[in-house]
Amino acid sequence: MKLTILGCYAATPRTLTNPTSQVLEIKNHMFLIDCGEGTQVQLRKQKIRFSRINHIFISHLHGDHFFGLPGLISTFRLLGRDKEMHIYGPKGIQEAITLLLKLGNSWTNYNLVFHELSSKQPEVIYEDSKVTVSTIPLDHRVYTNGFLFKEKLAARTLNIDAAQSYGIDKCYFQNIKNGKDIVLDDGRTILNKELTLDPPKAKSYAFCSDTAYKPDIVPLIKHVDVLYHEATFLDSQSELAPKTKHSTAKEAASIAKQAEVGELILGHYSTRYTSIELFKEEANEVFANVSLADDGKVFNFT
Amino acid sequence: MKLTILGCYAATPRTLTNPTSQVLEIKNHMFLIDCGEGTQVQLRKQKIRFSRINHIFISHLHGDHFFGLPGLISTFRLLGRDKEMHIYGPKGIQEAITLLLKLGNSWTNYNLVFHELSSKQPEVIYEDSKVTVSTIPLDHRVYTNGFLFKEKLAARTLNIDAAQSYGIDKCYFQNIKNGKDIVLDDGRTILNKELTLDPPKAKSYAFCSDTAYKPDIVPLIKHVDVLYHEATFLDSQSELAPKTKHSTAKEAASIAKQAEVGELILGHYSTRYTSIELFKEEANEVFANVSLADDGKVFNFT
Repeated sequence: MKLTILGCYAATPRTLTNPTSQVLEIKNHMFLIDCGEGTQVQLRKQKIRFSRINHIFISHLHGDHFFGLPGLISTFRLLGRDKEMHIYGPKGIQEAITLLLKLGNSWTNYNLVFHELSSKQPEVIYEDSKVTVSTIPLDHRVYTNGFLFKEKLAARTLNIDAAQSYGIDKCYFQNIKNGKDIVLDDGRTILNKELTLDPPKAKSYAFCSDTAYKPDIVPLIKHVDVLYHEATFLDSQSELAPKTKHSTAKEAASIAKQAEVGELILGHYSTRYTSIELFKEEANEVFANVSLADDGKVFNFT
Repeated sequence: MKLTILGCYAATPRTLTNPTSQVLEIKNHMFLIDCGEGTQVQLRKQKIRFSRINHIFISHLHGDHFFGLPGLISTFRLLGRDKEMHIYGPKGIQEAITLLLKLGNSWTNYNLVFHELSSKQPEVIYEDSKVTVSTIPLDHRVYTNGFLFKEKLAARTLNIDAAQSYGIDKCYFQNIKNGKDIVLDDGRTILNKELTLDPPKAKSYAFCSDTAYKPDIVPLIKHVDVLYHEATFLDSQSELAPKTKHSTAKEAASIAKQAEVGELILGHYSTRYTSIELFKEEANEVFANVSLADDGKVFNFT
């Protein structure tokens, strides 16, 4: 699981900072999460192949999370894309994109499949054999979802050394892979778990931006390996957080602590701050394992 | 008159090139022409004060000329703008912007005044005491206008030295400024033109992008001081120009020659070319005074 931060600053693109967008690489998927203005240039800077992106998740329809999407969709067309593109986002996203394409007489030559969201309850919005994606309803000025990405636990794998040590013939290996115990010629039963190896731990990532402090989400993200939680403000501006439906660094850390997550990544810093180090310091008062997102930063989760 | 190129490449924003946008400073106005994705960051790089922009002209609704506008409008709001903003562009632009603001529940706290264009005839779309802006109907895949910016000829100014040499009393100076001749005490009539100075030459700028080769525009831009004309292709790809309704460098130069303009600036280069020098070379075969636009380049026209 690998996370590339394309942009993690609030409000408005500037010379050196970009609005929210990130790519989560998980089980051979490249999931694009949010798409602020400038995302396609950030993708190029990170040398991420556009063709590997097939699913785009948009948290909410504020410009700093969404205004890069029309251009990205157009660029996919110019690059000759023919694969379906799936877009998950709040109700209204299809109307907006469709209108822009219509006005430009620039219909895509690939299928755009919209998955519009309107439920205020968490729901599974994507699933395949290896991963699920669910919504995390957040509390912001417009309808907003975070997203929970979970790997599925893979099947146990054959422990060839163990099987051979019992003299088990190859023709039984598929049965072992299918979870069966084995009865040896001498009548002993060897339990499947002695003949197989634990699969790699299934990892999970929760993206929560933008949101006011919302402890309701704790059960949804309990024990995730990595939580990205917005931290727009420092304590000194904490009175702005509930007003604007954003969080402080400490509030993000409090969510991380209650949810007992493995690691907290902070982002969505207000551009009023000249340095982001204080976000980590304040969060560390509440929760130990805190990292700071920054544009272009790559996190590898092993 | 001063022109700042914010972006002048076709199709899609890339790490080092930006789609179309430029600022024309003329008679104390800062007119923004087109607004591709990334325009607001380019404005910051050029240190252009956002508050000085009150009129935005959009040629057509293809993304590379327009997708930076929703973000720019949002940023004006975040910057606390309260002055009216006038937006001139094809019919549909108001619906698009309004929908995006509605979906984000992000109405501006300043007035957005849309001037939607649909005429296929040239028309004056802005006028004050010092400048006029007219449309130049172009030939592209969607409804597209170029824009002609013309300074008005200022009034002749008083030549104090000349007036004093005739011993004319100050109380007559206003009459001179108003264009009157003066009768001296000795009965001689001094013509106004002897007592006044020529005003500075009224300059003009024509922006023509995107368009196929369209000689119909020649009478509209005859003798302009500066013509910016798109040149998407070189001769080697000339067969693509009519198909995509774009122009070659030579076609742009041919328009410049027929219109007898003072200077031709080329732009809107296809990103397939690694160097833009050939655009100038090919245009120079037809027309002598050719400059190449490039992102961040500033032209001062004295």
